Amino acid sequence: MSEQKRIRLTVAYDGTNYHGWQIQPNGITIESELNRCLTDLFREPIEVIGASRTDSGVHAMGNIAVFDTTAPMPADKIAYALNQRLPEDIRIQKSEEVPLDWHPRHVESRKTYEYRIYLGRFPMPVKRLYSLFTYHSLDVNRMREAAAYLEGEHDFKSFCQTGAQVKSTVRTIYSAEVLEQGDDLVIRICGNGFLYNMVRIIAGTLMEVGQGKKEPTDIIHILEAKDRQSAGPTAPAHALMLVKYEYP
Amino acid sequence: MSEQKRIRLTVAYDGTNYHGWQIQPNGITIESELNRCLTDLFREPIEVIGASRTDSGVHAMGNIAVFDTTAPMPADKIAYALNQRLPEDIRIQKSEEVPLDWHPRHVESRKTYEYRIYLGRFPMPVKRLYSLFTYHSLDVNRMREAAAYLEGEHDFKSFCQTGAQVKSTVRTIYSAEVLEQGDDLVIRICGNGFLYNMVRIIAGTLMEVGQGKKEPTDIIHILEAKDRQSAGPTAPAHALMLVKYEYP
Repeated sequence: MSEQKRIRLTVAYDGTNYHGWQIQPNGITIESELNRCLTDLFREPIEVIGASRTDSGVHAMGNIAVFDTTAPMPADKIAYALNQRLPEDIRIQKSEEVPLDWHPRHVESRKTYEYRIYLGRFPMPVKRLYSLFTYHSLDVNRMREAAAYLEGEHDFKSFCQTGAQVKSTVRTIYSAEVLEQGDDLVIRICGNGFLYNMVRIIAGTLMEVGQGKKEPTDIIHILEAKDRQSAGPTAPAHALMLVKYEYP
Repeated sequence: MSEQKRIRLTVAYDGTNYHGWQIQPNGITIESELNRCLTDLFREPIEVIGASRTDSGVHAMGNIAVFDTTAPMPADKIAYALNQRLPEDIRIQKSEEVPLDWHPRHVESRKTYEYRIYLGRFPMPVKRLYSLFTYHSLDVNRMREAAAYLEGEHDFKSFCQTGAQVKSTVRTIYSAEVLEQGDDLVIRICGNGFLYNMVRIIAGTLMEVGQGKKEPTDIIHILEAKDRQSAGPTAPAHALMLVKYEYP
């Protein structure tokens, strides 16, 4: 045995077949699969601490988890060894040593999410698992104008699922873009933190703006209202992707 | 009953869960699902004629099929009615009336295929169903140079699975491009027709050129050899997409 060290994993997954990140009494989760495979790999009970507890059905290209071990395996080799044990819809992208007190939810970070909408005339089968199909036409310029009002430090209480328990609903959005990528419309949001269902409620609200049901300037009033009822619906989970975490 | 008419369908599908296009004694196919749903919709036995009999696992955004019916439903409404009956991994993109003698394999057409390779450092779960992951680094410029030798009218016997029965192995490739799309490398080939496994053998051969196992100019010798053994391996099916059919 060597000294204890803390390992940070960058974790990518297809959320289609999981009950989200966090361990559940019923149903397989990303966290439970990581714990199972790490425990198997290191032959000691291991429990990861995750950065973002993504919902059931949400995907990730770069969620973050840490765990502690005294095993002598070089940190960068853990990704390869773990990937051989994980199911093919979970893949470690990077493994590296971090200080023992480094905690993924207690450090400053920039998180980037993407919400993908497919604008073709009919649903496209190869896109169905990772984007939302809509028959509505969406005005991109209206959505861009609306998204810009989300940028900056605001109280996002209106964009938080009711019942969520958090000390503060103030967050900073560094950028909120609406990008056209072929037949896809991608809402790309970067911020210092996100409330429960926040990106999905933002996506549902921006889509209402795109359809003409809401005005771009309504975002100002929704933020002021601090009331979930004032925002649009929560858009479906399967079109949401946690793209990356960045640490200073 | 109205007069008999011929309907052309543009068919998109995720090939993951199908035994290819063509009806099989065992296993569900795209063709069998279309026949089943059309027969159910029109309450008369209907059998489609397909343009391209894609292999098991291959995807399509625009394969073509025709069928005849005397039902009075307007041609453009058939897409909507059929999509309500089809499984979610098959979706009609367009339905339109064509002349009764129009046959999808007896008309001149331009077909476009894409073979997608993911070049990230580790496999990316959300891309695993529609692209090939490789640990090898690929030299794009070498692949482009090699692809250019495929353009034009050639005997593609070396790029045809042995045992395939065809009158002629001469085909015309209008363009063979190697495109960089983010972390993906896309081999995009447009031609007047493709032999059995031709695009997958081209992809396997271009990847060997990209890895340095073959020289770009080897394509000239492979074409001349008219021998399947001279070309590279058949690349896996799941990364291949039939993008579109175009008719003059």
